[in-house]
Amino acid sequence: MDQEAGVPGGTASNYFANRDDLLRQVGEYVHVRLAPSAQRLAKTMAAPPDKSLVERLLRDLLERLQVDRTGYLALLELRLEATRRPELQAALTKTISDNLEQNVRFHLDAGLPGDRTTVVSLYLAMSGMIVEHLTLPEVLPEDEMKELITALVDRT
Amino acid sequence: MDQEAGVPGGTASNYFANRDDLLRQVGEYVHVRLAPSAQRLAKTMAAPPDKSLVERLLRDLLERLQVDRTGYLALLELRLEATRRPELQAALTKTISDNLEQNVRFHLDAGLPGDRTTVVSLYLAMSGMIVEHLTLPEVLPEDEMKELITALVDRT
Repeated sequence: MDQEAGVPGGTASNYFANRDDLLRQVGEYVHVRLAPSAQRLAKTMAAPPDKSLVERLLRDLLERLQVDRTGYLALLELRLEATRRPELQAALTKTISDNLEQNVRFHLDAGLPGDRTTVVSLYLAMSGMIVEHLTLPEVLPEDEMKELITALVDRT
Repeated sequence: MDQEAGVPGGTASNYFANRDDLLRQVGEYVHVRLAPSAQRLAKTMAAPPDKSLVERLLRDLLERLQVDRTGYLALLELRLEATRRPELQAALTKTISDNLEQNVRFHLDAGLPGDRTTVVSLYLAMSGMIVEHLTLPEVLPEDEMKELITALVDRT
């Protein structure tokens, strides 16, 4: 593992007690890699809090997905690994729940249209789109994904 | 593999040329296991084609998911395996695309409310819900999933 990561032998075992501990920590921090940068978010937020802003945030997610396929695929692999490792499942449940709550709070605090259910529904539809795009990219062509985002936001 | 399946030695190699061939065939037929039975569908369809019927179909999907977690988890594992096996990806892309088109046609032919985009949006949201429920079941409690289905259908 040290060799693949290009670090001196023994590095991983210095930082992580065992494989469960390593995966748990990955599960806790994976959102840091996948989150938009503060700069990007600030740029997006320099706009009135209306549906077009929600649409821009979702398109931004689609773009991050295309730039960092590996990161999103790793999260999906972690989710499956979590079905077999209770410790990882607990860590990832906390990460994903906290992230979802942050999204809800951000949406409501920014005065964006809709309520908690709106945000959770958009989260689920985007999750479905991400899994489809990562695993079977030909099922939904890129243009259709963009149209779907517009439609999802329109119907909120 | 024969031993785990409880069949005589050599059975798998009689039916499948190699591992790719086996996975491709699983990818082609997995929808048969996950589809609702004709009886169940007929019972559901003995109702006027309105939003409450769409809601019932989605709740039915949620129930099948709970009864056959293993089948749905296998499909998710197959999707990830497909990122590494082009043949499996082609087979699974066809299965999932055909299934999605069938859903769209069924919805429109039955005179259910909404259009193609409605059906694809519901499909994505339900996919997201399935992945969440299979991998991190504590993120969305069962009651919240049922409420979300109601909300998703209300907003179509």
